[in-house]
Amino acid sequence: MEKPIGHRRWAIAEGHIMEQGPTQEFAIYETACILNTAERDAHVKITVYFSDRAPAGPYRVTVPAHRTRHVRFNDLDDPEPIPRGTDYASTIESDVAVVVQHTRYDSRQAENAQISTIAFPSVDYRGF
Amino acid sequence: MEKPIGHRRWAIAEGHIMEQGPTQEFAIYETACILNTAERDAHVKITVYFSDRAPAGPYRVTVPAHRTRHVRFNDLDDPEPIPRGTDYASTIESDVAVVVQHTRYDSRQAENAQISTIAFPSVDYRGF
Amino acid sequence: MEKPIGHRRWAIAEGHIMEQGPTQEFAIYETACILNTAERDAHVKITVYFSDRAPAGPYRVTVPAHRTRHVRFNDLDDPEPIPRGTDYASTIESDVAVVVQHTRYDSRQAENAQISTIAFPSVDYRGF
Amino acid sequence: MEKPIGHRRWAIAEGHIMEQGPTQEFAIYETACILNTAERDAHVKITVYFSDRAPAGPYRVTVPAHRTRHVRFNDLDDPEPIPRGTDYASTIESDVAVVVQHTRYDSRQAENAQISTIAFPSVDYRGF
Repeated sequence: MEKPIGHRRWAIAEGHIMEQGPTQEFAIYETACILNTAERDAHVKITVYFSDRAPAGPYRVTVPAHRTRHVRFNDLDDPEPIPRGTDYASTIESDVAVVVQHTRYDSRQAENAQISTIAFPSVDYRGF
Repeated sequence: MEKPIGHRRWAIAEGHIMEQGPTQEFAIYETACILNTAERDAHVKITVYFSDRAPAGPYRVTVPAHRTRHVRFNDLDDPEPIPRGTDYASTIESDVAVVVQHTRYDSRQAENAQISTIAFPSVDYRGF
Repeated sequence: MEKPIGHRRWAIAEGHIMEQGPTQEFAIYETACILNTAERDAHVKITVYFSDRAPAGPYRVTVPAHRTRHVRFNDLDDPEPIPRGTDYASTIESDVAVVVQHTRYDSRQAENAQISTIAFPSVDYRGF
Repeated sequence: MEKPIGHRRWAIAEGHIMEQGPTQEFAIYETACILNTAERDAHVKITVYFSDRAPAGPYRVTVPAHRTRHVRFNDLDDPEPIPRGTDYASTIESDVAVVVQHTRYDSRQAENAQISTIAFPSVDYRGF
């Protein structure tokens, strides 16, 4: 049995969801791509940080065993939607080790990533 | 004699191969760039993870000693091609230490990368 | 109480602020996105390195507890503005652990990042 | 006196210098951005790996104390130019700790990076 790859706590220090309105010709989809190579489901908590207000969340998502999931920040709405047109950052915590990559897609080219970078793993996290 | 640089297990949490058809004016080439600085060949196993089905693979490639190899996910077809138009992620395991970088090329500008990021190295992997 | 995520010392090895003038149709905004998940404010010192002169700084910014801040290098002016049209690099030091991501925005698409990569964390830093 | 930030051995797994000729409307400048925060000069050796021939180099560059240097792979010519139109990878070794970031510039927008990612640091390197 193989050891799952990754860490249980990650951070993405950069994020921005565009204002959306009739004058916008396209949208950006901010995404946290999460890979779970473990043999059991990963229960993930996402916390979103802002420059001018208290953090939002936790948003809860499940990444099944041996699966990947592309979580769009635009789609998170429980406990509240992420405000548009403002900077944010996020932490991703999981009860099993996962790998997180931060990718931004352009709706005009839905299958075309603009940026992508591995998130920052915390190697010293204890507990969930 | 110099110690090879890298790790034996890596993950890429983000991937997407476009649907290909007559209405597509260009294609994206997802690539895992693998560098082997060791004095012997690296035997590499790639496993591909999806959101809605069991993983595919392992796909086997060899990176010769003191060489680099750009592996296109589009070209992997044994044991099966990677489905188009769906999200995926991957792990890369090698019997010698290698370095892995994830790059996406646009066929309209074949020598022009769109994104590139170092993959995630697992520092605690034991065994192959 | 949760342990803050990150490190206290980071480096960004690449940077370039465009010359700005009437013939420039757009500007690039170099940004260090800093996330502070700690329960107290982070006092941050940024030092900027060049190819042909002594380093500039330190520039001092505060990232409040549980907040993120996108610091534009273009805006740094105390003790001196960063020269335009020249290569630079930077280090970011904080008195509490933070996460740093390096992002470059294009003023024509102000909400559209061009590149983004996690900065380099120094794991062995002692003292502030 | 502050400890220099970084490592003494790095790898960039992806690289490609375009063919250059009259039909090319633009060129790509592959760059290794090297930051030396130490109090003494860094003597750097770059080795370039290919898919189909023995490695080239070492190419030698010096990054002065407290300076940054953007090394263009296109400009390396001693002991030999890097072949155009082929994939390559590289290792960067230094006698003092440095930080390396891999960036690709487009000559049409000389101050506009296309991709940028921190290189892969080897934490276990002994000796130079």
